[in-house]
Amino acid sequence: MGGVTTVNPTSQRGRPGYSRDDVIRAAVRAFNSRGYDATSMGHVAQDLGISKSALYHHITSKEEILEESVAYALSNLEQAFRDVVAADLTPGGTIRQLIYGSVAVLCADAESVTLLLRLRGNSEVELRALSRRRELTRSVIPLIAKAQESGEIRSDISPAVLTRMCFGLVNSLADWYEPDGELGPEQIAQDVVALLFGGLDSRR
Amino acid sequence: MGGVTTVNPTSQRGRPGYSRDDVIRAAVRAFNSRGYDATSMGHVAQDLGISKSALYHHITSKEEILEESVAYALSNLEQAFRDVVAADLTPGGTIRQLIYGSVAVLCADAESVTLLLRLRGNSEVELRALSRRRELTRSVIPLIAKAQESGEIRSDISPAVLTRMCFGLVNSLADWYEPDGELGPEQIAQDVVALLFGGLDSRR
Repeated sequence: MGGVTTVNPTSQRGRPGYSRDDVIRAAVRAFNSRGYDATSMGHVAQDLGISKSALYHHITSKEEILEESVAYALSNLEQAFRDVVAADLTPGGTIRQLIYGSVAVLCADAESVTLLLRLRGNSEVELRALSRRRELTRSVIPLIAKAQESGEIRSDISPAVLTRMCFGLVNSLADWYEPDGELGPEQIAQDVVALLFGGLDSRR
Repeated sequence: MGGVTTVNPTSQRGRPGYSRDDVIRAAVRAFNSRGYDATSMGHVAQDLGISKSALYHHITSKEEILEESVAYALSNLEQAFRDVVAADLTPGGTIRQLIYGSVAVLCADAESVTLLLRLRGNSEVELRALSRRRELTRSVIPLIAKAQESGEIRSDISPAVLTRMCFGLVNSLADWYEPDGELGPEQIAQDVVALLFGGLDSRR
């Protein structure tokens, strides 16, 4: 670290050339790539080409980064859900927009959402985030039930199972969405909604 | 470990009361619950209420368990894929059966498949398994393309994106499927295929 091969010259003098946001972003990327528990602050410092002490200039602990990032992801998801529920949509339209909005939040900040989705509940911080995430998912079930009652979405599968399957598909984007890839967030959201609402079958 | 609170009396004499399969099953469960990197063999021994040396009576390392379990999951998935491709189905029927078969393999051994799906590639063993998994997913893309050409499935989304979305939904079962839950594997496979082929929209 800070050796001759470093890409960031300022770090050679042990002075951070990165903002706090840069550090957090790099850390979250490292957590997602190796897994949170397998990543040390040494790894993060190495990725940035700075010393560990330069890293601790910005943050106090690995867990601080985890807590802040997943709280950010959760707040964005919660806000997106509130916006959709506040809009004057039919019950079916609400589900459509919840899916659309979730994809948008995931694509806008894929790293934080991915970190959230991979939490295992190994600490108080993780457990609190998981419980907030669970609340959010549970809040969709009665909305799906309402859309079934309205006749807009199929009624032959339980609302809880439909909720899990729909958000299972949305969340799986975390495993393959590439922010700099060919498909933009808008296109992906459209494809997800098209498949979930229309199905694979061409005879629909 | 092996103390007065242990639930398995044989372990108090340091003699394993578990078979090798039991040990592997408990280890994989622990890996999935805490994350592989966050789980020590001490955790596994503790979960089983046996000593670490009793554990090493059965296996030589944590990685041995990982390698064996994900190889098992991969072999089952590969076999299921081969069976479907060998069957005399229409291109659309092939996709339907691949999805059905994948759900069946996942439900039959949710722990091993979950372990496979959560690998991050932190070792040679993990990288090899990830590459085998990628091969499997890639093998579906031309089959989806063929089903699109046959007119059986929708053509407005690229085969690669459809493949990822379909298997993203299937794989997300690893996060919520409960082997002892209300829904059996058969019902879940039917619901997944019904949603993926028919869509949410009741007017299909």
